Amino acid sequence: MRTFSTIIASSTPIGRYLISRLSLRRSHAISVKPQASTPPMAAADASNEESLRRTLAEKQSAVDAQGNAVRALKAAKASKSEIDAAIESLNRLKLEKSSVERELQSVVSGSGGGASVNREAFRQTVFNTLERRLFFIPSFKIYRGVAGLYDYGPPGCAVKSNVLAFWRQHFVLEEDMLEVDCPCVTPEAVLKASGHVEKFTDLMVKDEKMGTCYRADHLLKDFGNEKLEKDLSLSAEKAAELRHLLAVLDDLSAEELGAKIKEYGITAPDTKNPLSDPYPFNLMFQTSIGPSGLIPGYMRPETAQGIFVNFKDLYYYNGNKLPFAAAQIGQAFRNEISPRQGLLRVREFTLAEIEHFVDPQDKSHAKFSEVANLEFLMFPREEQMSGKSAKRIPLGEAGIVNNETLGYFIGRVYLFLTCLGIDKERLRFRQHLANEMAHYAADCWDAEIECSYGWIECVGIADRSAYDLHAHTKELFLHSRSQQECGEAFGRLMNEKEKLWMMKAHWNRKGRWISKEKKKEHHLRVFTASSHLLALVELYTASMSTLSIQGQVKLGMNSLNVFRFPPSCGTYKCTLSFPLVQNQQYEEVAKVISTLLKVAGISHKIDITGTSIGKRYARTDELGVPFAITVDSTSSVTIRERDSKDQIRVSLDEAASVIKAVTDGQTKWEDVWSSYPHHSSESADD
Amino acid sequence: MRTFSTIIASSTPIGRYLISRLSLRRSHAISVKPQASTPPMAAADASNEESLRRTLAEKQSAVDAQGNAVRALKAAKASKSEIDAAIESLNRLKLEKSSVERELQSVVSGSGGGASVNREAFRQTVFNTLERRLFFIPSFKIYRGVAGLYDYGPPGCAVKSNVLAFWRQHFVLEEDMLEVDCPCVTPEAVLKASGHVEKFTDLMVKDEKMGTCYRADHLLKDFGNEKLEKDLSLSAEKAAELRHLLAVLDDLSAEELGAKIKEYGITAPDTKNPLSDPYPFNLMFQTSIGPSGLIPGYMRPETAQGIFVNFKDLYYYNGNKLPFAAAQIGQAFRNEISPRQGLLRVREFTLAEIEHFVDPQDKSHAKFSEVANLEFLMFPREEQMSGKSAKRIPLGEAGIVNNETLGYFIGRVYLFLTCLGIDKERLRFRQHLANEMAHYAADCWDAEIECSYGWIECVGIADRSAYDLHAHTKELFLHSRSQQECGEAFGRLMNEKEKLWMMKAHWNRKGRWISKEKKKEHHLRVFTASSHLLALVELYTASMSTLSIQGQVKLGMNSLNVFRFPPSCGTYKCTLSFPLVQNQQYEEVAKVISTLLKVAGISHKIDITGTSIGKRYARTDELGVPFAITVDSTSSVTIRERDSKDQIRVSLDEAASVIKAVTDGQTKWEDVWSSYPHHSSESADD
Repeated sequence: MRTFSTIIASSTPIGRYLISRLSLRRSHAISVKPQASTPPMAAADASNEESLRRTLAEKQSAVDAQGNAVRALKAAKASKSEIDAAIESLNRLKLEKSSVERELQSVVSGSGGGASVNREAFRQTVFNTLERRLFFIPSFKIYRGVAGLYDYGPPGCAVKSNVLAFWRQHFVLEEDMLEVDCPCVTPEAVLKASGHVEKFTDLMVKDEKMGTCYRADHLLKDFGNEKLEKDLSLSAEKAAELRHLLAVLDDLSAEELGAKIKEYGITAPDTKNPLSDPYPFNLMFQTSIGPSGLIPGYMRPETAQGIFVNFKDLYYYNGNKLPFAAAQIGQAFRNEISPRQGLLRVREFTLAEIEHFVDPQDKSHAKFSEVANLEFLMFPREEQMSGKSAKRIPLGEAGIVNNETLGYFIGRVYLFLTCLGIDKERLRFRQHLANEMAHYAADCWDAEIECSYGWIECVGIADRSAYDLHAHTKELFLHSRSQQECGEAFGRLMNEKEKLWMMKAHWNRKGRWISKEKKKEHHLRVFTASSHLLALVELYTASMSTLSIQGQVKLGMNSLNVFRFPPSCGTYKCTLSFPLVQNQQYEEVAKVISTLLKVAGISHKIDITGTSIGKRYARTDELGVPFAITVDSTSSVTIRERDSKDQIRVSLDEAASVIKAVTDGQTKWEDVWSSYPHHSSESADD
Repeated sequence: MRTFSTIIASSTPIGRYLISRLSLRRSHAISVKPQASTPPMAAADASNEESLRRTLAEKQSAVDAQGNAVRALKAAKASKSEIDAAIESLNRLKLEKSSVERELQSVVSGSGGGASVNREAFRQTVFNTLERRLFFIPSFKIYRGVAGLYDYGPPGCAVKSNVLAFWRQHFVLEEDMLEVDCPCVTPEAVLKASGHVEKFTDLMVKDEKMGTCYRADHLLKDFGNEKLEKDLSLSAEKAAELRHLLAVLDDLSAEELGAKIKEYGITAPDTKNPLSDPYPFNLMFQTSIGPSGLIPGYMRPETAQGIFVNFKDLYYYNGNKLPFAAAQIGQAFRNEISPRQGLLRVREFTLAEIEHFVDPQDKSHAKFSEVANLEFLMFPREEQMSGKSAKRIPLGEAGIVNNETLGYFIGRVYLFLTCLGIDKERLRFRQHLANEMAHYAADCWDAEIECSYGWIECVGIADRSAYDLHAHTKELFLHSRSQQECGEAFGRLMNEKEKLWMMKAHWNRKGRWISKEKKKEHHLRVFTASSHLLALVELYTASMSTLSIQGQVKLGMNSLNVFRFPPSCGTYKCTLSFPLVQNQQYEEVAKVISTLLKVAGISHKIDITGTSIGKRYARTDELGVPFAITVDSTSSVTIRERDSKDQIRVSLDEAASVIKAVTDGQTKWEDVWSSYPHHSSESADD
């Protein structure tokens, strides 16, 4: 699915509510999703910080005043007892000041002193484990790599293809969607119509001597965050000013950003050289189609345009009936200026998008009742404005989501993400504030997951009205040279109300067709959402792992190096290994089991390294494999479950079918556990 | 999988054997597969044509001589009976000449007069059906499209994802391969090492006035083919010369091609303007990575390089053991000068490649015995050289395939393609001739499928020695600035014999590491194969359909518009529809069945249009859907099988499980047919 705009409430504790950002560049008029955002700071924290800064300034004044008093007493040669009393009072004031300082330090560096440091260390450990186990590999690393490009290694590929298969089952199959698969190479005309050629840009500045490029807003953001976090002597007013700047960063024009960079004296981070004025850099990879060099093209920055340009054919395929949804899974490309945030902001990634077309007169959904009773964390506009936090609300509760169709997809996305194993406590649906949405949008919700970067948007669900189809209609109209060509161009795209309005003025000969269409009076709206799959794997993994570190961050190997993927969407379904003792017969047994597993379509990894069972189980945990089979007899095997660490004995011929049953979801591990003899020996877990 | 070079025996009937082409451009030293080739003309036909041309020339001389004789007799005022006899003799000679002419026409225009015309008409009908049913859509067609770019519509997507899922099951899962997934955007250094930057080119000529671009070899090929087919007065010598030219076309340098174009007076096809000299055009889509404009990049032309650059990590992942295979599925891009042959030569396509790394001292394969008894059409080098045709040989028969590992993969590819439903009679494995292979290759085989374009390569399987890894090693070595950096660079890629040879001369300090590695003495070889998935869909579909038109081409709707996809790899598993009579209860029943099908993961299309059952079955056939469920009662339904057109009655609660059993392959239709009551009514088939 695909999101509507790049907007996420940012950390902006001015006053008592969150101010959201409206991106003027990437997302103005066109639809673009961010690959990540900074975690919003709770309004309460912000207010607390402000009062602490004021208290600190007062304490500082008091310390200064008392210092002066002590000096005055000394100069006046006052009595020792008088001077001692004044010094004692000064020391008490200094202690009070230190205490406020510590409190402020803890507030500005994240909730509860050192948490942000821990979060970063935790993330680095997860990242290292993922890299060491080849979940991902920095692309072309033997050639020193390219920033923002990553390969999936074998376990990463397994997760990706399982997640995509589940996505197809959950959305395409269960919702009868029409899937399409369009090329990445896209001619300029299409992306001119969608607005990407003109507006899919970030503002960039250059080191004037070295030519190194930086994102203008990143420089200001880094400057502001560092100042706020490290400069405790910053006045409450100055701090508020900086926080306001951070909040409105995406709203600033090139000129405004340039003025701020000059005002704060920001220079190139690496060289301290002066910087150029900010100017827009288009984020699409450009190329040229065909040998003539005359057809400019781009690598698509999103997959949705392929759906829009095929609207008419898909509508026909659906029997000329509304509603219907089209879906596409494929690569998207964004030539980021300076990719950051690890796997969250990359230059090439897999998108899975849905465009749902509905009659604007009837946005009810036949299956809404199936999701109406779901209850989960929602963060409506009102709660954000009044500084409250997300609350658990039944989806069907009146008046929160604009319409049933939008609500139905929120419910389906909730089911998708929780089936993937995302923790319900770390998942919320946040409604866009009025000024976050484009003028044509009716309502937008983001599914956000809390991970080490804070709350990260990972699916966007938006009612975008007929904006996207309209954009192509307009483009085709503008470039038609005659009334007939204009009619043909429209006919190529769609039969739709807005088109008719435009056409009536210019091309009203084919009355029959127009009046026939007018009767339908439909006005199309698109519901979209998107998820960056590579990012999802990290979010998901992190989310899984943070389960075991909730509250307090533990970096011990035991708690961290277990990835609790659900069996359906993890890497392998099981591992297959032998004990230390070499035994030819065991190897034959393992071959038979492997063949049975393959016939049943169960992916597995054979571990033939001669290490202890404990070490092999640790490796299994690190790959997030839910079950481990150990061949330690010629008649039966041990099966161990990852999370409970329970072990059972199963006969050879049942091993594959037991694994199939528990990974298919036909049977629960608890039931298997109660039906087979238990096993406990030589495990590192004991 | 991926092929070794672009070489396919071409139609070249000089002498008595096929001369093959060695492409000097795209495939010289680097590995590139053609997306299609022209069907080779049988040696016997070629020899026949030559003798016919000689006979025709003799008959023409005889006619000319006899004509002169008649004129001489008339001039000499010979007797009427003498003149009549001479004229009768002339007419007899003319008849003989006409007969030879007809025979020659039939030989040059394909085997058995008019077949090529029929093939083209057949292909066009298949193509039209595929487009009408949205198997594919010309990309961006509302913007007048881009040549060589196609979208998959819903049924095409279904076939693609089923074929890919089966590929993963058949190769990755069953052979324990390591899957990787690398980006399409690739920095220049990688493709310089692989040879693509320098040599992945086609020779191009330009219309000197209009600037239109053409492939130089295409112009000569079209000129030669048209001359040979239409100019019956062409002498046997001239015809042989042209055929030789066509045979060696890919071997010609830019200068030689240019000279031939001048010699034959070839001009721009559209304008008849003069043409430029040929010059190389690189087929990679070029782009720039990052904002500086200083990192040139390309969209990858194949997925294999992503495997090679990760060799060391994958080898480590496999416990530093050989053999192992790595696999990748992904997009590849080729900026063709002028895409032709419909879906067979496109500018963006999905590749599925395997690189198998093996110890050169031991190319045996543990599972070779599992495929050794397979018997299918093989076309060894010897048979091609002696003008014979492909023969049915058991794969295990001694001496044909270079080694067991290569043989094993040939067997696995055979099983893959026949499981996909490719007709065994239209599938052959052709060995490359000695001069088709690069100097470093040991043996190469192509899986070729016969379709309307003739025999088309669709999978290449090659023993390429260590060439590809070596290329990256060399590149890293050349750009290392110090001994240490050189060592590091090598270390980043691999630990391999050739590297050690090069390093010993330049960097022999780390004796310990070298000697440790030397003991292993492994020398890596790569087996590769590739298939263009979009092309496969067409090949496959055509192959399916030609089943019903074998021998004689029938273009009737009935025989053509059934796509006989196997249930596992087709579009939907079944359709679900109602009879003409509207009935609210039936709709409820259909909803229940649809839900049961979804839970079982069975893809299906609901047909709610109120047309006759016959028409709905015809639509089901056109989408290649194997089963159709018709809801015509509230207690039971009719299930119809596509190929036999048999219909059975099944109770509501069994419908989904019957479909699951027959599409999973657990049960055969024959068994279901014998277990349920039969049904025969109101079908259009009756």
